[in-house]
Amino acid sequence: MSDQGATPTPSPAPPAPTGPPPKVTNRGRTAVPISSSNSDSTDIPEFEPFVLPGPRGFPPMTEYLDIWDVDMMRRPEELNKKQHHTELFNSDYLIVRRGQEFQVKITFNRPYNPATDKFAVEFVIGSSPQFSKGTYIPVFTAKERPSPWEGRVTDTADNTVTMGITPVADCIVGKYQMFVAVVTPVGIRRTRRDNSRDLYILFNPWVSADAVFLDDEKERQECVMTEMGIIYHGAYDDVAERDWNYGQFNYGVLDACLYIMDRSDMPIINRGDPIRVTRKASAMLNSRDDEGVLVGNWSGDYTYGVAPTSWTGSTDILLSYANSKMPVCYAQCWVYAAVFNTFLRCLGIPSRVVTNFYSAHDNDGNLKTDIILDENGRVDRGRTRDSIWNYHCWNECYMSRPDLPTGFGGWQIVDATPQETSDGMYRCGPASVKAIKHGQICFPFDAAFVFAEVNSDVVFYSRNKDGTMEPVKVNRTHIGRMVVTKTPGDVTRRDITDQYKFPEGSTEERTILEKAEEYGCQREKSNPPVADVDLVLPTLEISRGDDFELSLEFINRSTQHRTVEAYISGSVAYYTGVTSYEFLFRNPTVKIGPNQSVKESMMVEFKNYVKHLVEQANLHFIATGKVKETGQIVTTMKVITLHNPKLTVTVSDGGKVNEEMTATVEFTNPFTFSLEGVYIRMEGPGIMLPKSKYYSLIPGSSSLTWTEFFTPQRAGRSRVIASLDCSAVRQVYGQASVTIEP
Amino acid sequence: MSDQGATPTPSPAPPAPTGPPPKVTNRGRTAVPISSSNSDSTDIPEFEPFVLPGPRGFPPMTEYLDIWDVDMMRRPEELNKKQHHTELFNSDYLIVRRGQEFQVKITFNRPYNPATDKFAVEFVIGSSPQFSKGTYIPVFTAKERPSPWEGRVTDTADNTVTMGITPVADCIVGKYQMFVAVVTPVGIRRTRRDNSRDLYILFNPWVSADAVFLDDEKERQECVMTEMGIIYHGAYDDVAERDWNYGQFNYGVLDACLYIMDRSDMPIINRGDPIRVTRKASAMLNSRDDEGVLVGNWSGDYTYGVAPTSWTGSTDILLSYANSKMPVCYAQCWVYAAVFNTFLRCLGIPSRVVTNFYSAHDNDGNLKTDIILDENGRVDRGRTRDSIWNYHCWNECYMSRPDLPTGFGGWQIVDATPQETSDGMYRCGPASVKAIKHGQICFPFDAAFVFAEVNSDVVFYSRNKDGTMEPVKVNRTHIGRMVVTKTPGDVTRRDITDQYKFPEGSTEERTILEKAEEYGCQREKSNPPVADVDLVLPTLEISRGDDFELSLEFINRSTQHRTVEAYISGSVAYYTGVTSYEFLFRNPTVKIGPNQSVKESMMVEFKNYVKHLVEQANLHFIATGKVKETGQIVTTMKVITLHNPKLTVTVSDGGKVNEEMTATVEFTNPFTFSLEGVYIRMEGPGIMLPKSKYYSLIPGSSSLTWTEFFTPQRAGRSRVIASLDCSAVRQVYGQASVTIEP
Repeated sequence: MSDQGATPTPSPAPPAPTGPPPKVTNRGRTAVPISSSNSDSTDIPEFEPFVLPGPRGFPPMTEYLDIWDVDMMRRPEELNKKQHHTELFNSDYLIVRRGQEFQVKITFNRPYNPATDKFAVEFVIGSSPQFSKGTYIPVFTAKERPSPWEGRVTDTADNTVTMGITPVADCIVGKYQMFVAVVTPVGIRRTRRDNSRDLYILFNPWVSADAVFLDDEKERQECVMTEMGIIYHGAYDDVAERDWNYGQFNYGVLDACLYIMDRSDMPIINRGDPIRVTRKASAMLNSRDDEGVLVGNWSGDYTYGVAPTSWTGSTDILLSYANSKMPVCYAQCWVYAAVFNTFLRCLGIPSRVVTNFYSAHDNDGNLKTDIILDENGRVDRGRTRDSIWNYHCWNECYMSRPDLPTGFGGWQIVDATPQETSDGMYRCGPASVKAIKHGQICFPFDAAFVFAEVNSDVVFYSRNKDGTMEPVKVNRTHIGRMVVTKTPGDVTRRDITDQYKFPEGSTEERTILEKAEEYGCQREKSNPPVADVDLVLPTLEISRGDDFELSLEFINRSTQHRTVEAYISGSVAYYTGVTSYEFLFRNPTVKIGPNQSVKESMMVEFKNYVKHLVEQANLHFIATGKVKETGQIVTTMKVITLHNPKLTVTVSDGGKVNEEMTATVEFTNPFTFSLEGVYIRMEGPGIMLPKSKYYSLIPGSSSLTWTEFFTPQRAGRSRVIASLDCSAVRQVYGQASVTIEP
Repeated sequence: MSDQGATPTPSPAPPAPTGPPPKVTNRGRTAVPISSSNSDSTDIPEFEPFVLPGPRGFPPMTEYLDIWDVDMMRRPEELNKKQHHTELFNSDYLIVRRGQEFQVKITFNRPYNPATDKFAVEFVIGSSPQFSKGTYIPVFTAKERPSPWEGRVTDTADNTVTMGITPVADCIVGKYQMFVAVVTPVGIRRTRRDNSRDLYILFNPWVSADAVFLDDEKERQECVMTEMGIIYHGAYDDVAERDWNYGQFNYGVLDACLYIMDRSDMPIINRGDPIRVTRKASAMLNSRDDEGVLVGNWSGDYTYGVAPTSWTGSTDILLSYANSKMPVCYAQCWVYAAVFNTFLRCLGIPSRVVTNFYSAHDNDGNLKTDIILDENGRVDRGRTRDSIWNYHCWNECYMSRPDLPTGFGGWQIVDATPQETSDGMYRCGPASVKAIKHGQICFPFDAAFVFAEVNSDVVFYSRNKDGTMEPVKVNRTHIGRMVVTKTPGDVTRRDITDQYKFPEGSTEERTILEKAEEYGCQREKSNPPVADVDLVLPTLEISRGDDFELSLEFINRSTQHRTVEAYISGSVAYYTGVTSYEFLFRNPTVKIGPNQSVKESMMVEFKNYVKHLVEQANLHFIATGKVKETGQIVTTMKVITLHNPKLTVTVSDGGKVNEEMTATVEFTNPFTFSLEGVYIRMEGPGIMLPKSKYYSLIPGSSSLTWTEFFTPQRAGRSRVIASLDCSAVRQVYGQASVTIEP
């Protein structure tokens, strides 16, 4: 450079600006903000000129059609809601399903002339609507102007045109605004924005072109239309059930479900895809990461919220979240699954809650659950860190899987319970049930994780003094013992284990497990010799408050004498399998003759464990031991869930729509101690919104009666369900069936 | 109940407790907290008795071995670091790679007697170490006590035993504590915790049993050992490059990388799996969701941090994050990729930064990028919302994929740049490059997303007055035009497009795209007729400050006359393709004779756009138009990246290890205006840590000279690289090669 100016000298760097940095914008990164809220909207002009106005403005528009009225035909008794299976929604708006025609009536200032008049019905969703993104859809009646959504004039009478409109079967699901536009040579004349013309478009399991098509009316009635749910829990050999009011048609629930997607910033344009919608919702149903719907809590301390066992339905939870915009306290797995079920059924995705008994949860897709025994064969609780959940609830939803090879559509697992110990997974699924059964665990999403939940091995290790361990027993059938769900159209239980697994011991089962291993699942390879002594714990049904005899049977299947040094331990445990207090311990030495069996009995007294019971009142028994003659390790495990007292619910006779009725909850405290801080909740699908009552004290052996008035909104069979919950006893439920005449 | 007490009455519910709810614990959910921090540790007792002490305590231990000294043989000149390719790490600790033997020397109080003395070397990582989880590993020398990590005595001399230890090839990667334990009949005697015996175990690409094994020494040298990087940017037909100091061996960088995993709460037991480690890191490198390393900013306003273009290496960023525990401001795609590369090479996972030119980024796995034209064929900027990134950088890392069918191991794509507009993806990969090439987009993780980045179609729509649109042109070759990376062992560019795609127009390519569609990718189906007129914009290399002539060629391939009503638009644009200011617009009508071509030239003057230049100084030209005779739409696009002035870097002659040298940066402001708020940065791998200098003003045409002293730490070839950055001109770089004699 010839022309050289003053040489610059370095100066101290300027002081850093104080205060928090400004929010980083999307400038430079995206042309316009992404539309991710269904409650946002853009103003659509009432007049869009095609030409510049003349010196005197635009010519008068009197010769063109003017729109006087638009009737969305949104009353439940009109055909739209009936034909679209949406008449149960407690909503003033039109609610229809995609891929199926609905009707609107448009009244003009004069009769419509197809030859000369041109008009369009326009649908708009979210901010910055765009034709190519499916967020702005004009529908024409003329054949020569094909529109993505089919439109046709189905009737004309005087000045009124009835138009049939068929949203495409993969359109965005959510709340649309509707306009009527008349096209004139000088511009477009359009109706003013009117909230009452908003309409909701939902998924449609009744239409084969929809990805959620389910070709079974009974299943559809259950998995989309039924509000009354039964969720199974307890132990696999003593299954308990609780009622749940999904309440997907209750006032405000549909808006709450759309709010959940808005809150997650889910782009509007993705909301027609059930894979994306269900995956996003599995993340949003829990509060981890994203301020989602429900806060998980397994600690037993629910001071700051509602105990997970106390809820009777989803309505309270969803409305509370939508109103307060804050996560709701508290949930455990069945609450996540139940509220997720409401979300799915509300939007029209067929879904059901399933329960997996003995679930290898929280183990990060590992196919091993480790139990550590000391050198004598006794469980080393300090070193046993894995736990097996007594049961775990998740959801199945029904859809095609165009992202997978053919054959893996149908039921898909989604799970909103946050997986605490795994790789920070706060979303799970959709994973194809068929992929789980066939070991295709590399298919998205999270199939490997679900596979492990139903297929892990329980490995017993013997720990040597110097810290090394040897596997001494592998139980390959304990985990995923049974998967159940409610029978469609019935109140019974349906065993769907065969949809998840081939029969234990079958060739297919072995092949599938080998295939899963090829895809990186680590199984226990060692095959320690099977002992010739079996331990058997009985299946018992025990009520809370009962003392009972537990007898452990030792069966010698050898032709020689056997001596077992046994350890029998009984603990109070959470349903997550985490033990909290050992109330029983025996260490008998048992001699068994060749091919004989011996029973070792012990009394389990209520008073010994009552003070330590947690939550769902599970007693875990584990017996282990070493056979002296062979050195072999023997083990058996059993979970006993105490049966709780019940609530008695009665409903007044002769229910009729819109006539007042009463429901009465009765409860007698069966214990000698007082119950403190007791909440009772009651609700019923279509007949009663959630109600609750608080009792600061219920003295031992005393009774209470609570009567509520209610007015059924619709005819048919329903239930009133009630729960009682306090820190000393949880999971006290009752219900009464009721039939409402029209 | 016969004995009925006082009837309880409902009372008002107790007031809700005030204050924020307590942190929810894992009580009831997990038996012990999950170990997820490599900086946590558990106290290991110095004596673990096997028996109860007698009345006089334990018998004296004099007859058993006592440990006097442990030598980790951790100096760079000793064999361990040389053999394990870790001698470049600036660290006092032993650093080894898994699956390969290293040596430690143990000195006892007397000679070791293999027949009677029993000792073990123990390794422990994280809190609550457990044998079955691989977080507690005792290593024995005796054949009869096999341990997961092989141990053998390789030498004995006097009281000293040299022991060879081979960590298993899939062990956890991180920082271990080491103990020596002597096993006696009464208990275990153990060395006290001593920080200097801590050791790091890394991934090992040199060992075939490791999942990251890479059987090519040249690639290993480049992708693990090389600190000096070149990152490509600019335009596909005018590729620019910048140097980057990955600095993976700098003091503190390895600890910072472990801190990143700790900060993410990644369970220790998952840290041996390169799939999990890279996936987690792709989430943690960006600050979205999880307070990760780098805050993205594309706005041009970097007042509160360092401009993405200003960084010269990763060291400053990683050390700042580890020290402040706060996300570092600011990054764009190459900064994410470069820092991610440091993380991967530091831990021993072979990796490289690749650049994809014309990347369909941010489009959520959609195979379409929409450009909207109005009825006359002019781009409608208000309605065109998609953008095509000029380039996008991501990482490839090398590993086997046991979770996928055979054949999809090798290079895997990971991407730490947060995907703003997509389904909230703030992590991406590992996605198999082979899966992308073969259209296996359902394979985890995020293969569909990456597939779209290199395979989308650009669809031009013509928008009608009434809002409907028709596709008028589909460009199937624009996106993913070229993928490049640095050549191993050289400073040249390597085109690896063929690893991502089959040749355009080949049968394989068509089959792959069809397969991707089967897996749910939506492509543009319409095939509008190809116009018989071509528009061609020239490839130009223009320096900032130059005026230049742009000539648009119209080629008529028909045998008839053609008339094109053309729209030529020039805009300043971000590298994300988002346009910021249109500085040129022409609307010529061009007549072309049969089989003729016509050139339309226009001058582009610097003064017209200089004030509006953003960031990386890209000019986007787009020409569109309609052929009058046929109604066909013609389009062409071109990105010109202005060449910036350069820094001159010179280094003093005769470099030797540990001898002081000087590096000088010279710069002359070539513009007539002053540059304000200028930062200059300089650093060099193995020779100079990052330094920076601030100039408040560099007047037009003035020069500056900055000289720094430095002392090379190691011999070999290296570079001093420098950057200059201010809001008026970014991406000013310079470098000087230097060879350091031992």
